[in-house]
Amino acid sequence: MTGSASRRQLMENELLDRAAALFAERGFEGTTLKDIAEAVGITRPSLYHYIKSKDELLGMLVSGLTETAAAELAEMEASELSWSERLTRAVRSVTLRICAHPSRFRLLDRSEHILSESFRRRHQAGKRAILAHLSAIIDGGIKSGEFWPTDGRVAAFSILGSCNWVAWWFRPDAPGAAPEAVADQLALMALRSVARTDRASVPVGPRAALAAIRADLEYVERHLPAEGS
Amino acid sequence: MTGSASRRQLMENELLDRAAALFAERGFEGTTLKDIAEAVGITRPSLYHYIKSKDELLGMLVSGLTETAAAELAEMEASELSWSERLTRAVRSVTLRICAHPSRFRLLDRSEHILSESFRRRHQAGKRAILAHLSAIIDGGIKSGEFWPTDGRVAAFSILGSCNWVAWWFRPDAPGAAPEAVADQLALMALRSVARTDRASVPVGPRAALAAIRADLEYVERHLPAEGS
Repeated sequence: MTGSASRRQLMENELLDRAAALFAERGFEGTTLKDIAEAVGITRPSLYHYIKSKDELLGMLVSGLTETAAAELAEMEASELSWSERLTRAVRSVTLRICAHPSRFRLLDRSEHILSESFRRRHQAGKRAILAHLSAIIDGGIKSGEFWPTDGRVAAFSILGSCNWVAWWFRPDAPGAAPEAVADQLALMALRSVARTDRASVPVGPRAALAAIRADLEYVERHLPAEGS
Repeated sequence: MTGSASRRQLMENELLDRAAALFAERGFEGTTLKDIAEAVGITRPSLYHYIKSKDELLGMLVSGLTETAAAELAEMEASELSWSERLTRAVRSVTLRICAHPSRFRLLDRSEHILSESFRRRHQAGKRAILAHLSAIIDGGIKSGEFWPTDGRVAAFSILGSCNWVAWWFRPDAPGAAPEAVADQLALMALRSVARTDRASVPVGPRAALAAIRADLEYVERHLPAEGS
């Protein structure tokens, strides 16, 4: 990246953060480009060097959050790693992105109805892609036997909810804020929520599977109500 | 409940659903009490029999969602059940409430900044209580050895996120919508995300055992020689 390109990126990043904060505080309608220029400390003509309108700012939020995440998950789904590893990396990556910009993410969620038609379509396509890739990773894990059989779409929503909710509680500026630790814990919990730890790394075969069925049937039997009760 | 008390409750329920839908569609500012009366099919003077202001409607949303959930979780935390069972019931109950009123829940999240000071304080106290009770259940499970050692607060946020996100994707009116199945799956995933399945003394539940049997049978089936070979 050249010096000027990187300077431009830094400024765009600053613009998005300040704009998201102002939108959250005063609402989208209640915020002007002048407010945003003042918050960043540049003149309004200089602002036009970076963005033309508030709509364009929202569009940059869409591409920076939803579409980047969708592209990353597509790559992970298509990788050659184990399904457990693909899921772990997907959750870590989604969580770290939200930890870095929680207010941008919340703003995007709340502003969906004011996005222009084309941006809304891009945002919704991005969200559908994120769900589809995560569901595919879970279904892949189920087929391979790494994960429990379950409804892959509901499981994907459950895991996405755990990641997305970070935007509602994580404070990147709080003392001791540790995005890496949060991402690690959420990834581990997501993996445990679907993975069959009973056979991880255990060499399985039909005989072992039959033994496991027998044990599970005995377990269910113990939990049945007594006859006639 | 007397007939008239139950009629009143039915009408309040209808009012809250219609008002939440209108607020979501037109915004809180863009909705008048007249709009709400028309949507419910009563006159404005009759409306005043039930509510005095839009603020009061938001207040009813707060008490109906946040405070009721907090009270229920307090009861579960204090119960004598195993920590696994307390967690399972807590997740089921939170999920079922959101499945029943997803738009109310989203509206409340989006309207926090327009709640009057006293309602906002009640809402925030309710949210803090929900988090505290769920964290306490997780910490209890960790201390007892039922759950893996982990950061109980982050784990509680992860599980709450998985439940709360239901408001963003579940459509109670969609064909085949099955709140009970969603609540069961989210509760099972939440339990697995924290429970130590390595300890034989920890029951994972007959449902989990049946899921495992099903997966094992499929595994055995895949490894059977083809018929006639």
